[in-house]
Amino acid sequence: MKLYEKLANSLRQQILQGFFQNGDRLPSVRSLANQYKVSISTVQEAYRHLEMESLVEARPKSGYFVLSNIANYSLPETSRPPQRPLDVSQWEEVLNLLLAKGDKDCTQFQHAMPIMEGASLKPLLKKLTELTKRNADLSLPYGDLRGIADLREQLVRLTFNSGCLLHPDDIVVTSGCQEALTVCLRAVTSPGDIIAIESPSFYGSMQAIKTTGLKVIEIPTHPETGISLEALELALDQWPIKAIQVTPTCNNPMGYSMPEQNKERLYRLAQSYDIDIIEDDIYGDISYQFPRPKTIKSFDTDGRVLLCSAFSKTIAPGIRVGWIAPGRYRDEVTHIKYVSSSMCPTLPQLAIADFIKTGGYDRHVRRLRQEYQQSREHFIKALTKYFPEETKISFPEGGYLLWVELPKGIDTLQLSKEAKHHKIHIAPGSLFSATGKYRNCMRLNFSEQTMAIREDGVRKLAYLIELTLSRKV
Amino acid sequence: MKLYEKLANSLRQQILQGFFQNGDRLPSVRSLANQYKVSISTVQEAYRHLEMESLVEARPKSGYFVLSNIANYSLPETSRPPQRPLDVSQWEEVLNLLLAKGDKDCTQFQHAMPIMEGASLKPLLKKLTELTKRNADLSLPYGDLRGIADLREQLVRLTFNSGCLLHPDDIVVTSGCQEALTVCLRAVTSPGDIIAIESPSFYGSMQAIKTTGLKVIEIPTHPETGISLEALELALDQWPIKAIQVTPTCNNPMGYSMPEQNKERLYRLAQSYDIDIIEDDIYGDISYQFPRPKTIKSFDTDGRVLLCSAFSKTIAPGIRVGWIAPGRYRDEVTHIKYVSSSMCPTLPQLAIADFIKTGGYDRHVRRLRQEYQQSREHFIKALTKYFPEETKISFPEGGYLLWVELPKGIDTLQLSKEAKHHKIHIAPGSLFSATGKYRNCMRLNFSEQTMAIREDGVRKLAYLIELTLSRKV
Repeated sequence: MKLYEKLANSLRQQILQGFFQNGDRLPSVRSLANQYKVSISTVQEAYRHLEMESLVEARPKSGYFVLSNIANYSLPETSRPPQRPLDVSQWEEVLNLLLAKGDKDCTQFQHAMPIMEGASLKPLLKKLTELTKRNADLSLPYGDLRGIADLREQLVRLTFNSGCLLHPDDIVVTSGCQEALTVCLRAVTSPGDIIAIESPSFYGSMQAIKTTGLKVIEIPTHPETGISLEALELALDQWPIKAIQVTPTCNNPMGYSMPEQNKERLYRLAQSYDIDIIEDDIYGDISYQFPRPKTIKSFDTDGRVLLCSAFSKTIAPGIRVGWIAPGRYRDEVTHIKYVSSSMCPTLPQLAIADFIKTGGYDRHVRRLRQEYQQSREHFIKALTKYFPEETKISFPEGGYLLWVELPKGIDTLQLSKEAKHHKIHIAPGSLFSATGKYRNCMRLNFSEQTMAIREDGVRKLAYLIELTLSRKV
Repeated sequence: MKLYEKLANSLRQQILQGFFQNGDRLPSVRSLANQYKVSISTVQEAYRHLEMESLVEARPKSGYFVLSNIANYSLPETSRPPQRPLDVSQWEEVLNLLLAKGDKDCTQFQHAMPIMEGASLKPLLKKLTELTKRNADLSLPYGDLRGIADLREQLVRLTFNSGCLLHPDDIVVTSGCQEALTVCLRAVTSPGDIIAIESPSFYGSMQAIKTTGLKVIEIPTHPETGISLEALELALDQWPIKAIQVTPTCNNPMGYSMPEQNKERLYRLAQSYDIDIIEDDIYGDISYQFPRPKTIKSFDTDGRVLLCSAFSKTIAPGIRVGWIAPGRYRDEVTHIKYVSSSMCPTLPQLAIADFIKTGGYDRHVRRLRQEYQQSREHFIKALTKYFPEETKISFPEGGYLLWVELPKGIDTLQLSKEAKHHKIHIAPGSLFSATGKYRNCMRLNFSEQTMAIREDGVRKLAYLIELTLSRKV
């Protein structure tokens, strides 16, 4: 990490923790340079960074001031799901979300769709066109069962950034991350088994658990540190849990990244109970932190972590390229991947391999990281400005999703229907629970719209919420 | 069907049934014109057709003569698998086949890879390039969960050709036929259930059955009429069979098409035992018969037939577009398809929809049909010429695969290893049995090579077979 980034992080932390409040004057450039033993220009660079995030503002001749009012808002509490194995329901609600058409004039808060415009994606699209034009002989036959070697080599490079040391043969390419998760679940479980998951948790993996005939036990989860290791250990003592499925880095829907020491402890826990971990890292590369956080897989010495990812959140979901580092389950995963959808198309794999190799992916992800972080500040500011005071909001450390906990009287399933009439789409909280809890919560993205549209959408949502609350009184 | 085609079919039938033997003089053009009440040019057209198939030859001033010696060869007998539910094995052998690299200088008899050259595929490739170049906004987001509407509309048209009357909403697009089959299996069964299948049977569906935790019962199958309905009924009486999985049109590996009345009887049987049928129709459109044979699905009035297909055998496997007409299982299939690999990429679907709509697909398939039929005659001639006299060969009515039964002493797993040293790849028969039977059989394709290379490959294979037999003596 560069010096100015370290300094910016430290200042950001102090602002967010409320050490500096809204409107406060921040330390002068000179005093910080002295204090941190860095150059004047480094401090200026750090402040420029925080300005871009709209956390501070420079006032001529007066110095830098805290602009943010997001220091004052509350995070959700640690979740408290029922501590017993349950069947997953909610398919109908998930289906509604999946089938919701994204009209151009709607405000789309509901999907986990990345930014797919801008120059940084161009090299990939160009390569894809070029390959399609030229390489009928490559695009037409069946591809390589485990994915083309070029891509697997580049994936080894990528996973090295998250602390892994893999070999291309340790990787199986899939049709997106959904296939990766489902294949892994089938590889490590038998119907009737129990899977421990975070709560709230991504609906796609819960629905995979459902159709695989498994039960879930939702573990209390903290909005900053992730799955509670204490609660997990209690559950492991009490129930014959077969595997743990988590999204520990830039979590969906909460956005937290589990601290590294917790990741390692989680791995040790899995080791001591001799169970497997299915780690979803699909948002890991767009962590705002650089270098990106380590994966649980990076601590894996005996192959019990099955790492899943895809380029759906960093490049585009339509490209349908995901992958698994299946550890000791390589043979099972290969078999199940084959019957799941046979080989993956070759050209998208070649195009992505080229994109990584030529540095395009790094550049693209760097750009996304900045844009999303800026969007986060703006979005949270809008939410805290318009939403009721009791609202609790998660604080994403990467990606473009966050979790909103509204006052108890609000039913977000109902709200989502009303909002739809006003052309605003949200993802109701109940989708992220196995049994439809979190009825007063919702997941929102801050990637699909411009900041102005987003703020307008938040304002309208706030109005609908106020209406509901006033009706209750 | 055109008049000359009818006449050609009739003559072909008489030749193949041995009514006219090798070297026999065929009826004169004039006498046939009189007999069938058609024009001289129609008869000439029919003979021209049979000449192209190398079934007859024109001798100047003497008329037409039977050229074929394929009338004299024997079909395999009805198979006699053990009549009890069994676990599927053979994954290792299947994996070897899947990983076998197709070097350019090898003779590839082992895969089910279609012809992917020629002008008739050009419009599709052009469209795909055009779409890739233009439509980043279409290719990048998630597609429609059930497949794009344009394609589903065209699929309704296609299935109409096989006797179905469907609505676009009755179709779910998948990532190839393998996903279609696996999704359907999961939709209609629970682990431990028994599935009745043909014997021999496609290894991909058997491996799907294996990883889904099901058992199979292999039903005796006739090389011309398909699964024995009598044997199936006995099995249905004796075992709690949950579903029937068949490939009744242009069967893989045998090539037969079940007579229509048998298809209807099979459907009635499923009805009376209240079980489901998973029908794999992936080769149906390249039946040599035109109009193409009806599907079992065409008789379906209560939604118990789940029709699966894909464009892997008619366009190219790399395009990864398949589909299901799931009947009464639409909701289950949608759910399982979602967790299996989420949405399918949009552009290949759009390109194929356009290919069908503009008539390109029909033209392409018509061309394939002719080429494959010609290849069949040549290939069977080569096989009967070089292979030991006791060899039995199936007689495909469509597609480009056939089944060879060698004398008992030959082990095709062993043969495949020896042949590989001589750069010839075959698919050993044991892959097509749940438990590794058919050790003296193999499946060969007649699509991947030129006729000359194919004949050379057959000659070399024959030599290896002779060697083995002479060693045994």
